[in-house]
Amino acid sequence: MAGEFDLIKRYFTRPSRRAALGVGDDCALLQPTPGHQLAISSDMLVQGRHFFADVNPRTLGHKALAVNLSDLAACGAQPLAFTLALALPEVNEPWLAAFSEGLFTLADAHACELIGGDTTRGPLNICITVFGEVPVAHGHTQALLRSGACAGDDLYVSGSIGDARLALDALLGRITLPDDVLLATRARLETPTPRVALGLALRGIASAAIDISDGLLGDLGHMLELSHLGATVWADDAIQSIAAYANSISARDVFDINFSMSYWYHLALAGGDDYELLFTASPAQRSAVAAAAAGCQTPVRRIGQMEATPGLRVLDAQGQPLPHTFASFDHFAD
Amino acid sequence: MAGEFDLIKRYFTRPSRRAALGVGDDCALLQPTPGHQLAISSDMLVQGRHFFADVNPRTLGHKALAVNLSDLAACGAQPLAFTLALALPEVNEPWLAAFSEGLFTLADAHACELIGGDTTRGPLNICITVFGEVPVAHGHTQALLRSGACAGDDLYVSGSIGDARLALDALLGRITLPDDVLLATRARLETPTPRVALGLALRGIASAAIDISDGLLGDLGHMLELSHLGATVWADDAIQSIAAYANSISARDVFDINFSMSYWYHLALAGGDDYELLFTASPAQRSAVAAAAAGCQTPVRRIGQMEATPGLRVLDAQGQPLPHTFASFDHFAD
Repeated sequence: MAGEFDLIKRYFTRPSRRAALGVGDDCALLQPTPGHQLAISSDMLVQGRHFFADVNPRTLGHKALAVNLSDLAACGAQPLAFTLALALPEVNEPWLAAFSEGLFTLADAHACELIGGDTTRGPLNICITVFGEVPVAHGHTQALLRSGACAGDDLYVSGSIGDARLALDALLGRITLPDDVLLATRARLETPTPRVALGLALRGIASAAIDISDGLLGDLGHMLELSHLGATVWADDAIQSIAAYANSISARDVFDINFSMSYWYHLALAGGDDYELLFTASPAQRSAVAAAAAGCQTPVRRIGQMEATPGLRVLDAQGQPLPHTFASFDHFAD
Repeated sequence: MAGEFDLIKRYFTRPSRRAALGVGDDCALLQPTPGHQLAISSDMLVQGRHFFADVNPRTLGHKALAVNLSDLAACGAQPLAFTLALALPEVNEPWLAAFSEGLFTLADAHACELIGGDTTRGPLNICITVFGEVPVAHGHTQALLRSGACAGDDLYVSGSIGDARLALDALLGRITLPDDVLLATRARLETPTPRVALGLALRGIASAAIDISDGLLGDLGHMLELSHLGATVWADDAIQSIAAYANSISARDVFDINFSMSYWYHLALAGGDDYELLFTASPAQRSAVAAAAAGCQTPVRRIGQMEATPGLRVLDAQGQPLPHTFASFDHFAD
């Protein structure tokens, strides 16, 4: 059986590029570009909580880094590097090979370098800390913050939301889906695309941003709290992408749930695991937002507006308030 | 039951000091002092591997950060900040209160600020990533590296080694110890002192450094590999501090092991969990090393020398080679 250090070397040591010093010393050394500051985020993924025991290790490697890159995207930060701490129940070389392949393929796509970490035996646990950089201009950070929204700002969401939760419900056996729908939504669940290019393009345009990991309404709540604002969300605009699947799924395909419009609301507004950007911008920036989105080929939709009146109002297509019983995903609420 | 976000707020959110932006946004923002680079290290602690299930949560909070600060010490980096990712099997408020108290007491002693992290449900797992800074002068890092040793350099170790392993053997029931010895060595096991001040004082004096986490000989091996050197270790100088206990422990106190000199060699040379600094310096620096050690009231001992001849030679007091069957601690070698 290979020792810890051999394992680390074989699968996780690569020549250092950007870092002054990478894997193999007590610390990695990293220096942001002059005039920039580091954006740092840390996410821990646990078996049974964030992924199934039989998950494909390649997609797990992708997702473990993707959820961290998504945090950088929400700050408008350029990815630089990451550390990986890994607890493994056993030494399984095919697993390690596939995991590291998924991890490094995404890392390379973003020129994000593994610079250090730790490996130990224990229940499977993946903890990645990611580093990006954002410019500081005249003493002010150019990072997108959760707290920067203003009353009257438009509220936008990128890409599609609810897909990951639809796939999860199918994998948990709560519903059945046609093969093509399962394939498409499962890819969104297992290999989400961090919206790094969009986050960078929105610097100087968006007033606030957050990535959607726990469900749209829950994450919007964090933004409202830090911006000291309320908001109205037009639910039918928010669910547009996921509701498109409704046309391709017959009632026969969906079991064990009260299959109705409220299911699609639930998926989109509280599904979680979306890793899309939720952001705000002044109405004066509408064409700039459209240009930024087009420039990185990432669709964005306007789904509401920020208001001085505290609280969250969710309206249906007729402008009637929806009861918002869409609790956000909470890792400690069972 | 309190939700995840309430928990984080209650125990792990404090006003941001050094960080531009701390806990509560997608990313923390951190900017090293101009002319400095960041030193980054990540360690993961797993129950049953790094601590017992019944460990005092206060000492666990201390140790989880201490082992990371020890990596900064080995680089000669000034601590700045850390992130904490925590998987907890349940919400246990007294546990969280004690854990965070131990964590923050040590963090405050080093002005090291919690700037972000993650909390999830899962088998107990603590992953800390720590950030320090080191100056860069004329394009060269002032960090202490593992790779900087030269043939002819003296080899030093700080403080005392083997204590943690002696306490561990007692706690595992392999030996019994007098109460005062158990108390003293258990403190070294559960609340190690990261040698941050010594690491800083050795910048510009030491040629290479590493912290001892896996056992002196094992960690020396890493230094030899990266410095492309060999070394001779004078075992009786290395075991001096731990062997002092031999006088206060009668044979009657020690069971189930072949109680002999080789036990003390084993503790000191391969015990692990010491979090002392192992470092090298030119013989021309002997008085500078002594002054640095005295300045931060941390004893250091000269225990060997670096040599161009590859390999590791361990000699007893008579200059005879010891069989070095002292395997370093390996998290994957059972």
